[in-house]
Amino acid sequence: MTEDLRRQVLAAKEAARKLRVLSSSKKNAALLAMAKALRERADEVLAANREDLDQGRERGLSKALLDRLALNQDRVEGLAKGLEEVAALPDPVGEVEGMWKRPNDLQVGLVRVPLGVVAMIYEARPNVTADAAGLCLKAGNSVVLRGGSEAIRSNIAIGNVICDAIAEVGLPKEAVCVVQNTDRKLVRELIRMHDAIDVVIPRGGAGLIRTVVEEATVPVIETGVGNCHTYVDKAADLQMALEIAINAKIQRPGVCNAMETLLVHGEIAEAFLPKLAEQLLDKVELRGCPETCRLIPQAKPATEEDWATEYLDYILAIRVVPSFADAVAHINQYSTGHSEAIVTEDYSAARRFLEEIDAAAVYVNASTRFTDGGQFGLGAEIGISTQKLHARGPMGLKALTTTKFIIYGEGQIRK
Amino acid sequence: MTEDLRRQVLAAKEAARKLRVLSSSKKNAALLAMAKALRERADEVLAANREDLDQGRERGLSKALLDRLALNQDRVEGLAKGLEEVAALPDPVGEVEGMWKRPNDLQVGLVRVPLGVVAMIYEARPNVTADAAGLCLKAGNSVVLRGGSEAIRSNIAIGNVICDAIAEVGLPKEAVCVVQNTDRKLVRELIRMHDAIDVVIPRGGAGLIRTVVEEATVPVIETGVGNCHTYVDKAADLQMALEIAINAKIQRPGVCNAMETLLVHGEIAEAFLPKLAEQLLDKVELRGCPETCRLIPQAKPATEEDWATEYLDYILAIRVVPSFADAVAHINQYSTGHSEAIVTEDYSAARRFLEEIDAAAVYVNASTRFTDGGQFGLGAEIGISTQKLHARGPMGLKALTTTKFIIYGEGQIRK
Repeated sequence: MTEDLRRQVLAAKEAARKLRVLSSSKKNAALLAMAKALRERADEVLAANREDLDQGRERGLSKALLDRLALNQDRVEGLAKGLEEVAALPDPVGEVEGMWKRPNDLQVGLVRVPLGVVAMIYEARPNVTADAAGLCLKAGNSVVLRGGSEAIRSNIAIGNVICDAIAEVGLPKEAVCVVQNTDRKLVRELIRMHDAIDVVIPRGGAGLIRTVVEEATVPVIETGVGNCHTYVDKAADLQMALEIAINAKIQRPGVCNAMETLLVHGEIAEAFLPKLAEQLLDKVELRGCPETCRLIPQAKPATEEDWATEYLDYILAIRVVPSFADAVAHINQYSTGHSEAIVTEDYSAARRFLEEIDAAAVYVNASTRFTDGGQFGLGAEIGISTQKLHARGPMGLKALTTTKFIIYGEGQIRK
Repeated sequence: MTEDLRRQVLAAKEAARKLRVLSSSKKNAALLAMAKALRERADEVLAANREDLDQGRERGLSKALLDRLALNQDRVEGLAKGLEEVAALPDPVGEVEGMWKRPNDLQVGLVRVPLGVVAMIYEARPNVTADAAGLCLKAGNSVVLRGGSEAIRSNIAIGNVICDAIAEVGLPKEAVCVVQNTDRKLVRELIRMHDAIDVVIPRGGAGLIRTVVEEATVPVIETGVGNCHTYVDKAADLQMALEIAINAKIQRPGVCNAMETLLVHGEIAEAFLPKLAEQLLDKVELRGCPETCRLIPQAKPATEEDWATEYLDYILAIRVVPSFADAVAHINQYSTGHSEAIVTEDYSAARRFLEEIDAAAVYVNASTRFTDGGQFGLGAEIGISTQKLHARGPMGLKALTTTKFIIYGEGQIRK
């Protein structure tokens, strides 16, 4: 079965050679055909999804997981719309990022080109299958999609529809490869096919991401874990701080850009924390440092572990800090480098926060919930990178490309 | 001893926090102090180097290796000059790559920032110690330098001089960390310190690079192996092709951008190959396909292995190909993605070659020997990346940085 997988991946690599030189109009035609086919064959996708859901219920999957797994007519329409939106985005491939002449008249340029073969390793949500296929194809890449076993029938059905549409417009359908065998051992094989795959992007829980980082020899773009902070400075507009903190915590607590720890400057803690508690206590469990617990009697004492935890839930850790520097030190110690915010009206505090905090997205006076490709104006996103290499923060189409140097000579040789 | 190493690396990480926000003028002052100290304390470095050389001779190191290891007054002067040149380069840190407003008035920008902690794993040449320290510091990074055991005394001596100079200008000397223990097991520890090191760059032989790629959990930038081709098209200016081929092969055969295989279009093989043989045969061993051997009786038959070998020596593989497409197919099969060249006067062939060849540097009518940070105008280089993630081709200061999103708000929350 390793051999089957290898054959598929090599076919994807071969297809990538053809995609690499494809015009935008051909790629867009494929994306529109994929959208059309998904609408026309929605029943087929939904039937497969019902089988996944039935088996999920038998296996006793949680309600939240079943919800992430479930498709319906609206969600399939959403997938089709998403593909049309990707078709409408500008194509990054072929963009010349710069070209210059050297003293010997050699003309050196840097041009944006596809990565080649992208492997996605992901969990429950079958929408990733269509989204990733669309984004990778638009950027001229083949994609190997290895979703979770709980969504395998849905993924295969979406893959069939997409591949048929690709073939219909005359492109190689091997460009989108849904791995049908969900044996976990094959993931390890996949992420070590260094000669055929150019990058692997894991999307899912911390365990999945750790396994991929540990085992892969293919370069990895690490995504996701967000232990995000909001720091309410002593010079904050407290009403603004209240709105931002509440939004960052509860607008959608289960996602990586939601706030997990709130830091509050000691000088305004007494004015701020009771007001916050009033608005949050009926929905959110508060865990605080001793000073927080003094100001909010209903808060539970926070432990060291709380400062390091991404709850993804209706829980908030709160710490009162004596100074700006202590807030920065706390964040730089516990941050996972995702999204961090300060609320302040102090020019220098804002400037220093932007400089001193080492994270993918650093905010002044806004909710961390904006860390998202669409919200940042990058178009659809393939994930949020929390590593520093290649891409950092929300990854749009450009993150699915690389560059090459092109050199125009007229016989130059090196002396 | 793992604990010692970990302590050093964490100190480097702490130092990186200070470097991150340092002004260019302070970093440049450190670089100039490093250069001055190397000149002043050259004797100390040379004495340590003599001990390395003595031990190398005892251990029976090859002459080539001893030459790479050897320092002298001129080479130390070269190191100092190199640091001064890095000081003169523009600082990439703080450059805003773009800033735009979203419909909700959120101002989103992308700013270039240091990577953090860079680990270099390298072999014999002690000049890497000074070069890498200078480039990393200029880009605001700490660097952990793990050179080979054969150069350990030289590396430690250079490290001492550099660290003293850094301390002298008031910066944290932990920013440059020479690993003193050359036990190979520690390399494995180092490249798995995922929580403290942001990137590892291996420089050296294929074995070293493979080990790092296989074992690292820290993101790796793969460097180096270059199985480079030159394709002489049927529309080539044969005199130009001759000069380019000779330059690419013998101007310096032991480096990664030297040509290893020459491809020649069938229609001009008879006119071209005997002339080439005339100029190369006294210096270079030729290994050819059957047609090459017919045209150059002195050539030995090439095997499949020859097409895949990076000789780094006075050996050249030659293949006559029936068409442009066969040349492209050969290159895309055997290339390591380093540097590839076409010699042609045909506009469409040039254009197609630039598009269809998937390598870090693709040339028309020039020698592949130009693939180098200095030659491309990037300033000093930290290595040549042959992977597609983050950096591809010669890596200058910019490759030692990453970006972060900075977001200026005025109370925006997500709906």
